[in-house]
Order: sequence, then structure tokens, then C-alpha cells
Amino acid sequence: MVAGVERMVKQTKSSGETELTCAVAGQVTAAATQVAARERRDSEVIRAGVAAGRIVIPANRHHVGLVPMGIGRELSVKINANLGTSALAGDLSQELAKLETAVAYGADTVMDLSTGPDAARVRQAIIAQSRVPVGTVPIYDAAGRVEDTRDLTAELLLEVIAEQAAQGVDYMTVHAGLLRRHIPLARRRLLGIVSRGGAILAQWMESHRCENPLYERFDDLLAICREHDVTLSLGDGLRPGCLADASDEAQFAELDALGALVRRCRQAGVQAMVEGPGHIPLDQIAMNMERERETCDDAPFYILGPVVTDCAPGYDHITSGIGAALGAMHGAAMLCYVTPKEHLGLPNARDVRDGVIAYRIAAHAADIAKGIPGARDRDDAISRARREFDWEGQFALALDPAKARELRQEALAESRGAAPAAAPADAQAPATAAAPVKAGSDEHYCTMCGPKFCSMRVFRNLDGDRKD
Amino acid sequence: MVAGVERMVKQTKSSGETELTCAVAGQVTAAATQVAARERRDSEVIRAGVAAGRIVIPANRHHVGLVPMGIGRELSVKINANLGTSALAGDLSQELAKLETAVAYGADTVMDLSTGPDAARVRQAIIAQSRVPVGTVPIYDAAGRVEDTRDLTAELLLEVIAEQAAQGVDYMTVHAGLLRRHIPLARRRLLGIVSRGGAILAQWMESHRCENPLYERFDDLLAICREHDVTLSLGDGLRPGCLADASDEAQFAELDALGALVRRCRQAGVQAMVEGPGHIPLDQIAMNMERERETCDDAPFYILGPVVTDCAPGYDHITSGIGAALGAMHGAAMLCYVTPKEHLGLPNARDVRDGVIAYRIAAHAADIAKGIPGARDRDDAISRARREFDWEGQFALALDPAKARELRQEALAESRGAAPAAAPADAQAPATAAAPVKAGSDEHYCTMCGPKFCSMRVFRNLDGDRKD
Repeated sequence: MVAGVERMVKQTKSSGETELTCAVAGQVTAAATQVAARERRDSEVIRAGVAAGRIVIPANRHHVGLVPMGIGRELSVKINANLGTSALAGDLSQELAKLETAVAYGADTVMDLSTGPDAARVRQAIIAQSRVPVGTVPIYDAAGRVEDTRDLTAELLLEVIAEQAAQGVDYMTVHAGLLRRHIPLARRRLLGIVSRGGAILAQWMESHRCENPLYERFDDLLAICREHDVTLSLGDGLRPGCLADASDEAQFAELDALGALVRRCRQAGVQAMVEGPGHIPLDQIAMNMERERETCDDAPFYILGPVVTDCAPGYDHITSGIGAALGAMHGAAMLCYVTPKEHLGLPNARDVRDGVIAYRIAAHAADIAKGIPGARDRDDAISRARREFDWEGQFALALDPAKARELRQEALAESRGAAPAAAPADAQAPATAAAPVKAGSDEHYCTMCGPKFCSMRVFRNLDGDRKD
Repeated sequence: MVAGVERMVKQTKSSGETELTCAVAGQVTAAATQVAARERRDSEVIRAGVAAGRIVIPANRHHVGLVPMGIGRELSVKINANLGTSALAGDLSQELAKLETAVAYGADTVMDLSTGPDAARVRQAIIAQSRVPVGTVPIYDAAGRVEDTRDLTAELLLEVIAEQAAQGVDYMTVHAGLLRRHIPLARRRLLGIVSRGGAILAQWMESHRCENPLYERFDDLLAICREHDVTLSLGDGLRPGCLADASDEAQFAELDALGALVRRCRQAGVQAMVEGPGHIPLDQIAMNMERERETCDDAPFYILGPVVTDCAPGYDHITSGIGAALGAMHGAAMLCYVTPKEHLGLPNARDVRDGVIAYRIAAHAADIAKGIPGARDRDDAISRARREFDWEGQFALALDPAKARELRQEALAESRGAAPAAAPADAQAPATAAAPVKAGSDEHYCTMCGPKFCSMRVFRNLDGDRKD
């Protein structure tokens, strides 16, 4: 790009043009321009990153109303929230409410993992309503159309993928790197295969004595993705489901296969990212991030957690938030949230809120650690508000203003003799406390310490006289 | 120790004998023996660690009913929960209930930070009831006895410390390393001094134009601690209170002073640990842990958080749990919990539970990462229970069985059409869901996926026929 000369912005993609093909052709797309503005980077940096495959911009040509975002190690860390009905739980209005909750609290993408009979209708509605990229796992939809998942065919899988691509799905998880030769490695594990798509495909392969149909028909899959600009998220069907299975031969054998698929995607002009574990002990996280980067030529790593201990069901937003923060600091580009319901059931709106906030914390902490420009501005601003006892300012700058206000209000009420208040459990209900008190009171101390023991108050008055 | 010859276990400590002096004299104390059993280590390893100052066993001679525990980098990671009334909030029965909650959920020590008029009575009751070591910050009690904290005197501070030592306090935080020459460094900060004790002492020093009385009278302080075997926790009065102040000159100047005090403690036969930050970005945590280890001759590092982002009030158990896990993996020996109420008010029983569990997760994840013997046993056991769809087994092995059961029950109820249930906010109330369902149902799937999409179920039946 010649200095001083504005590159023409390519406004629309035709069929067969993807963010990748445009970037390789030296074109800056409208999406790349928007990503550059959001990331406070030069659009040429974004174009070059997309061209190299280090950045993806999931932006299906048919997703009307999408606000494009970029995913890559050099950008701010992104988070995804999973939504979707199962055959046993969930309905459309609940899922749309969860979408609103997730995006309101800061989800950068959502995945619709619906497996119920309504999957297509739910997906259509979510795409229509969502301004953030929508991802899916097409094998769920396909599996819903057969009596027994061993009756799946390559044709059905490709048909579903084509339908979803035409609907406007921005990225799709396909477990195309789980190969037949990997299955014996998984049999040695404590928990075998915990990926739903992975387990279905493994059973299919064993039943038919055939290779993974998504692998066998990968070129056909690429043709569909190229047509609509669907980003492939190469799924880790062999992600470890417990610490005992972490970083094992099965996991890394599949990762090698995913690396080869990344190269095929790029050659075909299809954007690709790679999905990662799972359950990984804290001391193996940095190594896992480095290994993906080397094996997959720096394709954006999209990690699930990782959960760093198996024994805290009910708190897996925390166990995995710890792993996610560390993973992101070491280069993971997007974090798939885990909610408190993980291992227990389908999340409700409160769980979605708890999961999204935990992951915003992890992503933000990593952005600061990585030195993403401006990442610490919000922290410095809230710290200044603390110094000034500006409670309203603190609430406004908090990642979850309602929660901060609610807890402050609760503490004030309790300090005035009210019984400890039950916290509202509904993520969408405005917070109310047992006693009506002014949460944003400008009193220059909090109930944690009281005025005499308020370090901020004492420090402000370090040189003052005794009439303070 | 001659192989095959059992060393005599020293049953009681006389006045002036401490765990350190005994260990240096080659004696294995009853406390060291109990620590060895709990840590599954040889008692000689514990004795040698105590003698070198790498391990402390806070065990005041007067604390009847104490079950001794050890704190050190080579041992399992410990967590502390803070309790205590302030002038504005809390009463004795509430604090004793919080003590029970904290210990039930896994706190290894508690600190009574009471600053209200009842401080002495609250402390007495907590020591009497607590089987875990009790720590205090004596300057709080002393400050409560004067109108203006600038009226504090060295004599009053020593008097309070002697009283608390005679009461049976196992360890005490003293901010003896915050020196007058450090104050100008703190003035350059965004948030100055956020430690309550630190701020009071800085104001006192500026007001009297004198050096820190705890530093000036450190030998007198050591004599008291030696007499009763009080472990000193050398407080970081200059811990950063926001990311902008992290790892600055003020923090490390005080750390140097604390290192010198560690050596004076050891020479005096007094056990010592060192307290650490505070608010630290993720990428500076490992460096902070290494720096303490070098500066303080491997004295156990007792860290608060650290919080890794300033802007998530209401969720600081998570922001700090991330930092604590990483700190512990890099060598911190004990983690002081932070509750969701941090920066907002005094925690209630629900906050105590949330804080303790978040820190148990952090400590456990670090134990696994450090390779502490047997640390992963519980994870492997719960994973086996998962494989077997043994819900009761999973609940029993969970860090918080009640929470896991409650969320499973909620998910089952919601999947059967009940309205999303509000979670009970009271940490001590048994969980009840909207509809009575059997949480530990042995159905071989969960509502997250349903039976057809249950990877565990599919993988178990990888080679099975279609009549599964």
C-alpha cells in the first residue's frame, strides 16, 4: 500500500469470494475496515493478518445485520457463548432471551447448538436477531434428521452444511480431523471421546468401517464454505474430557490432522480456525497453545475453557475461566465460555450471564497481559473512580454494573441491620435489595472497613489535620 | 536422623520454644508430625523445611484444639478466609457462622479482621471455636482503642500484640516493612496505599515525623512472638491497589525491607511468612512470585489474590481466583481469599462460601500443576463417576456437593417444564428446587445433550449394536 493513498474498500463479496481470497488479492473489505476500527489498528494490518490466515473474520455473505469482528492472536481476545435447545430442554423464546443476555454481557459470537426438533427454526431466528457472528455444529442438525446416528451419510451432512451456509451461518464446527486411526488412541483414555460430534463420528466410522465422511468429502465441504464465506472451525473431537486424558497421544494426533486441514482450507480460500481443549492442567496450558501455533501455522486457536480441575461441578465457569485466561495470555484467540451448569445440564439465562462475565474477565485480563492497545484504560478509569469515592462511576465502568450495584446495596442494607438479602437469581430482572438504600451513596468509605479504617480516606488525608 | 531409629516426637512447646527453634534443634514436634501426616510427607522433610524457614506451622501454644497445618511452597497450597466485624457491620453470631461456613468449604486458616468495638470478644470466641489457625492484624484492635489513629503509640501496639498472643492468635500481620522513606514512592501512585494498616502507619509516620513503630520496636515484637510461638506474617502495606500501581518501586522497596525482616525473624527463632499483592496483571505474576522467593530467602509467600483486572466489582472472587491459581502454580504457599463483595462491602455468609470455593479451586488447580502427591486423585475419581453416570458419586466428590446437586436439580426441573428456579442465596440453607426431582437420577445422560447426543453414552457403545 502506497503511503498516503487510500486503498479502495471492497463493499460486497460475490459468491466464491471470501475474506481470505479478498485479502490475498490485496483487497481491503468493508468487514476488514470495521474490524480495524474496532481494534484500533490499521486496516492493512487486518488485511495482512487475514491473508496469512492468522486472523479470521467470520462473515457469511447472507448474514444480514452482522457487525463484523476479527479473531486472531494479535487482536483483542474474543469470547463465545453457546446457546441452543436440546430435545429435552429449551424453547425459542428462551434461546432468544439467552442470546440477548449473552450479547448484552459481552459475548463476541454465539454458537447455536440446538439439537431439538426445532433446530432449523431456532437457528433462523437466532441469525436474524444476532448482530454478532453465529456458529453451529452442523452434525447436530444432521443427527436430528435420522433415527440412529449410524444412519448418517456424507450426502446428508453436506446437505445440512449447504442449507446452514445459505441460511447465513458465519462459522461451523466440523470434526474433520478425527480419523479412524485415532480411535484406538481414544479407547485407552479414562473418558474416551467427550465431544458429541466426535463420539457420533467415531461410532459411525467403527460401524461402517469407513473413514470420517467429513474428512473424505473435505473438498466438497470447502466448496460450500467458499461459496458463502463460511469460516471453518476445525473441531477437536478428541479433546480431553478430564485431566487424566490431557495432552495425550489422541489429542495431539488429531491436532496434527487439523494442521493439515488448515493448509487445505487456506489453499481453497476458506478461512479456518482450530478448536482446542477441554480439560488441561494449569501447567500444560502454555505448551498446548504453543503446540497449536506451530502445528497449525498460527491459525486462530479457539479454546473451550480449559477446565483446570475436574472436581468443581457447579463452578466450571471459574475452573475454566482460570484456564481460559492463561490460554489467552499464551495466544488463544477466542474462548468458548463454560457455564456453571457444565457437566450438569443445560444453562439457563442466569448461567449464561455468569459464564459470559467470567469469560469477559478472562479475556480482558489476557488483553492487558498481552499489551493490547488501550486494554487497561477501563481499569485505570475505575481505579480513579475508586480514589474519588465515585460509586456511580465505578458501577458504570464495571463489567456487570447491575451486579456491582446489587452487592453494594446488599452490604449497605445488611450494615443497617436488615437481614442478609437473597440475591435476585434472574439475570434479566433489575436488582432490588431487602431495604431501599442508595447504592451509589457518596459516603467516603464502604462497609468493608468503615470510615476510620478506610485506607483511601486515610491516604487522601496523609498530611491533613485531625479535623477530617 | 539415623535410618530405622524413630526420632522422639516433642509433644509440647515451653515458653520461648517455637516450631522454628525446635526444628533447628533437630526436634520433630507433635505439630510437625501432624503436618507430615496431612501432607503425606516424611516428618523429617517437614522439620527440615521449618528449620530452613521455607515452611511455617502457625501454632500458638495457647490455641487449644488447633489442628496444626503447614504453609510452604513444597506443601499443598493453603487458603485463608477473612472474617470479622467492622464498626458498621457484623455481630458475633454472624461471624461464628461465617467461620463454620469458611472451614466447612475448605478454608485452611481464618483471619479475624474485626475492627468494631467488640473486637476482643469476637477474637476470643473465634479462637475458642476454630480448629484452624487464626490470624489477626493487631493494628486494627489498637486503632479501635484510640480516638484518632495518629494517637497510636508503640507501647499500645506492643500491648495489643502481647494480649492477642496470650489469647492464642496463631499468626499476625504486621506492616513492619513499610518505612518512612517509602511514602514518597506511594504518593506517585494512582491509588497510593490501599492497605488499611499501611495507610494508618504512613499517616502516623508523617504526622509524628518518626519511623514506623513496628519497625523501630521489631526486637520487642519478636520477643513476644517467640514467647508464645506466634508466626509473623510480614504485611505488604504498599501492595498495589490497582493494575496501574503493580510491580512499582514502592512495592519492591517494601519487599526488600521485608526480606531483611525475614532474616531477623529467623535469627530470633520466630517463624515468618511474607504477604504479597494485591492487583497484578496476569503477565507479571510469575515474576512477582520469583522475586519474593529470591528477596525473602524462600519464606512462604502469602498472597492476596492477586486481582488481574480492576473492572469487575461483584466478581472479584473470579478475577482474583485467576491470579491466585497462577501465583500458586509459581510458588505462592497460601492464598488469601477475595469474595464477590471486595471493593463493595463486608461479605456475608454467601460471599464467604463463594470466595472459599473459588480459592479451593485455585489452590487445587495449582496443587495438580505442581505435582503435589495425590492431588489429582479426586479429579480422576470424579471422572470415573462421570463415565459411570454415577451422579451421587459426582456430587460426593464435588468441592461443593450442595451446589452441584442444586444445579442438576434445577436443570432437570427446567427440562420438565418448570419455570427457571431462583437459586437459594443463603449459603447455609439446604438447596431446594422449584419442582421436586431426583437430582441423583441414574439416567445415562444429562439435559445438556439429551440421550442421543450424550458423548459418554455413544462412546460406551462404540461397538454396540443398534438396540442400545
